[in-house]
Amino acid sequence: MASDFRLKEQLPKLTEQIVATYTPEDSINHLGHCALPSYSGIVEILMNIKDILYPGYRRKVGLHSGNIEYHVGSLIDTLHDQLTTEIARALRHEDRVTQKHTDCESDIDFEAKGQAMAIELLKCIPGLRRTLATDVQAAYDGDPACLTTDEVVFCYPGFEAVTIYRIAHELVRLDVPFIPRMMTEWAHKETGIDIHPGATIGDYFFIDHGTGVVIGETCEIGQHVKLYQGVTLGALSFKTDSEGVLIRGQKRHPTIEDRVVVYANATILGGRTIVGHDSVIGSSVWITKTVSPSTTVLLEKPQLKVRGASADHEVLEDRLNFQI
Amino acid sequence: MASDFRLKEQLPKLTEQIVATYTPEDSINHLGHCALPSYSGIVEILMNIKDILYPGYRRKVGLHSGNIEYHVGSLIDTLHDQLTTEIARALRHEDRVTQKHTDCESDIDFEAKGQAMAIELLKCIPGLRRTLATDVQAAYDGDPACLTTDEVVFCYPGFEAVTIYRIAHELVRLDVPFIPRMMTEWAHKETGIDIHPGATIGDYFFIDHGTGVVIGETCEIGQHVKLYQGVTLGALSFKTDSEGVLIRGQKRHPTIEDRVVVYANATILGGRTIVGHDSVIGSSVWITKTVSPSTTVLLEKPQLKVRGASADHEVLEDRLNFQI
Amino acid sequence: MASDFRLKEQLPKLTEQIVATYTPEDSINHLGHCALPSYSGIVEILMNIKDILYPGYRRKVGLHSGNIEYHVGSLIDTLHDQLTTEIARALRHEDRVTQKHTDCESDIDFEAKGQAMAIELLKCIPGLRRTLATDVQAAYDGDPACLTTDEVVFCYPGFEAVTIYRIAHELVRLDVPFIPRMMTEWAHKETGIDIHPGATIGDYFFIDHGTGVVIGETCEIGQHVKLYQGVTLGALSFKTDSEGVLIRGQKRHPTIEDRVVVYANATILGGRTIVGHDSVIGSSVWITKTVSPSTTVLLEKPQLKVRGASADHEVLEDRLNFQI
Repeated sequence: MASDFRLKEQLPKLTEQIVATYTPEDSINHLGHCALPSYSGIVEILMNIKDILYPGYRRKVGLHSGNIEYHVGSLIDTLHDQLTTEIARALRHEDRVTQKHTDCESDIDFEAKGQAMAIELLKCIPGLRRTLATDVQAAYDGDPACLTTDEVVFCYPGFEAVTIYRIAHELVRLDVPFIPRMMTEWAHKETGIDIHPGATIGDYFFIDHGTGVVIGETCEIGQHVKLYQGVTLGALSFKTDSEGVLIRGQKRHPTIEDRVVVYANATILGGRTIVGHDSVIGSSVWITKTVSPSTTVLLEKPQLKVRGASADHEVLEDRLNFQI
Repeated sequence: MASDFRLKEQLPKLTEQIVATYTPEDSINHLGHCALPSYSGIVEILMNIKDILYPGYRRKVGLHSGNIEYHVGSLIDTLHDQLTTEIARALRHEDRVTQKHTDCESDIDFEAKGQAMAIELLKCIPGLRRTLATDVQAAYDGDPACLTTDEVVFCYPGFEAVTIYRIAHELVRLDVPFIPRMMTEWAHKETGIDIHPGATIGDYFFIDHGTGVVIGETCEIGQHVKLYQGVTLGALSFKTDSEGVLIRGQKRHPTIEDRVVVYANATILGGRTIVGHDSVIGSSVWITKTVSPSTTVLLEKPQLKVRGASADHEVLEDRLNFQI
Repeated sequence: MASDFRLKEQLPKLTEQIVATYTPEDSINHLGHCALPSYSGIVEILMNIKDILYPGYRRKVGLHSGNIEYHVGSLIDTLHDQLTTEIARALRHEDRVTQKHTDCESDIDFEAKGQAMAIELLKCIPGLRRTLATDVQAAYDGDPACLTTDEVVFCYPGFEAVTIYRIAHELVRLDVPFIPRMMTEWAHKETGIDIHPGATIGDYFFIDHGTGVVIGETCEIGQHVKLYQGVTLGALSFKTDSEGVLIRGQKRHPTIEDRVVVYANATILGGRTIVGHDSVIGSSVWITKTVSPSTTVLLEKPQLKVRGASADHEVLEDRLNFQI
């Protein structure tokens, strides 16, 4: 390699210049603070919980009634330690931010709190399995391309996203900071489905295809609800206080009652918007008002401009130059 | 770590409670059954097939006419074994589900069937290369930001999704269960493009950007078709039988004829809907009826509510409080 | 395994048939040419740059003022070598394509050019950190669900995509071929957000949720701009020359001035389209014309067909059979 050593001699100076930008006021370094939860650690926790939720589907084959208890017992033991460590990190970080500590000193025993929360999460697993079994059933019942429930567990991205959301939501209920959002953003990356862990979602929930779905923090969704790709359950413009700062924590996202179906790319906005039970919202509809129960809302036959319904040369020419 | 051992003593009990939920009726465990196809095994197969389809582009550098035969020969040998194993697993699983076996006993030699199907797939590779070369050409011809065909092979997500779809579709034609959907769902995760492996797609196919594209199981797409991000080729509501159960396997998705272009976020629905050859469907158009050949369909200039075209303070105030 | 050896004997013949398709005219092999940039190498470079941009957030914990210089110095040294290698490969490849060499011989010292460009990129890091700190602030200011700026750095996909875009854009400015697009397509895969590295984007830029966002090559975006999921800043139909070949390199994508907000799934198209400063573009709006400053553009209350606002049996029946 024809490396020019005079160029390479600049590197120490460059390093120095970069390091000089890591100041205490700088919002994008995390130096000298106690460790944040580990992203790869959180992903590993999700893999382990999924192995317990759906034994025999993914990483370990050859499981049967004779060995499953050893397998699960070992996973539970590992998860206890992983969850305790990561939750303690998240609690310590939150304490530092809210108490405005400059270091990570505190009198609170975050490990003890983390351990108690870890065990509470593990206790949720039987309940999670009951709920997730209803979601699998909803996918099978709702998708004519689905031939067995195994396919749902194995490769449906909507089910993957809902699984991670339901785990993360339990952590929200336990007041664990930071980690629930890391989990659902990981699911977002994997599936294109962005469910805020704070949302409330009933049983038998099915998202088909799912890419582009956004479900906001304060959504409330009933049972037997079905969403298609690109559906947004979002906020209207945000309230700000007298100094123009956003007000956080209000109900900003809609309520969707039982047995509602929302088709592809529909957008439903606002914290006071309620879609009544048994309603159907059609493709690409845009709603900011409440819809009564048992109502079907569709776009009128769209106003289309149709150019050239023949194949003669001039019309085609026009078509090709038309600006879309 | 300030671990509380009394808390940790709960873990065996917790394990027991979880294991008790793994019953034979439970739809989300796979205990004591013969192994499902391995997800990581399927991904490895796709990597190996791509190395054969596009030699020199990804994992192995320094390939030339003098060593390529050894390299491909070795990959083919590996693929033969991998495909045989995974296809046999898929066939055995399908047999168990359709015959309602409780275990994986059967008189059928699934390995022998798997091997024959594996070799049939490998025989498709020269034909796949011919078709995929037309797809690369279509991307280069259709994207002004594309400077060389190498870029298409190297980093176009639309081409990645179409590659995986074309492999999976050959497996559908060979009646291999389960694996084709695993493959296209992997591509969906990687690219945000969801093509059902059962769809039929002609040569010179190009999907630009692609995030959010959904192509349903019974779509028929001609040659020289171009789709943009967010396009749905989907189903209308599903037919159910007299007992309210979905009818599976009917044509539910549209037919797109040769040389059609569909712009971003357009939605075309229904098994009887045909978009005639040489037609153009504009951005965000929503169609459930047949379109004649050589037709351009556009949204009318949308009915827009425009507020405040001046910069004075009151108008801005209004704008900022307006609920979108 | 009940492998049939007669079947396996076909493999060498199959290999031969496949290798015979790797001809010099074939556009999808890269045999005997000099190596392309390595995809995994480019991803590794991005990880290393992110560790320098945001120290303490990801791979390395326990960093503090006493050890950060060693850590960054070592990363800079590694990056120098990695960037030199990959940029040299990209330059050599571009030379081969544009000069129509059949091999990779050339009198140009691509390593020396690569090294100089590598060092120029490293010099951009302090400036990148300043700009990216404004993007973090914009995310915090614009999202009521965001509680600390740490969350933005740690898990906001919009910020991830903008980080990678800003790195890639510096490489575009340095005239490095091929690699910028590889970088942003990696970010596209990770986040569903497709920003062309050639676009120009001002400070305080925020993309919320982000799945499905497409920002074209010749977009110009001002400061304090906010985009939601599914927004397309795209091209109208493409100009072709007298022989029907696409004209590359013209301004095809819109200009978005300072303090504009574009809500979910809006589509703004065309190289002459300007959205004036302080304007708001509502959800699902479709625009191909210039918008004056301080204007709010909304869809009119959509024309909706509402069917059945009661729960009596016949209406429900109708609803369920309605074709959406």
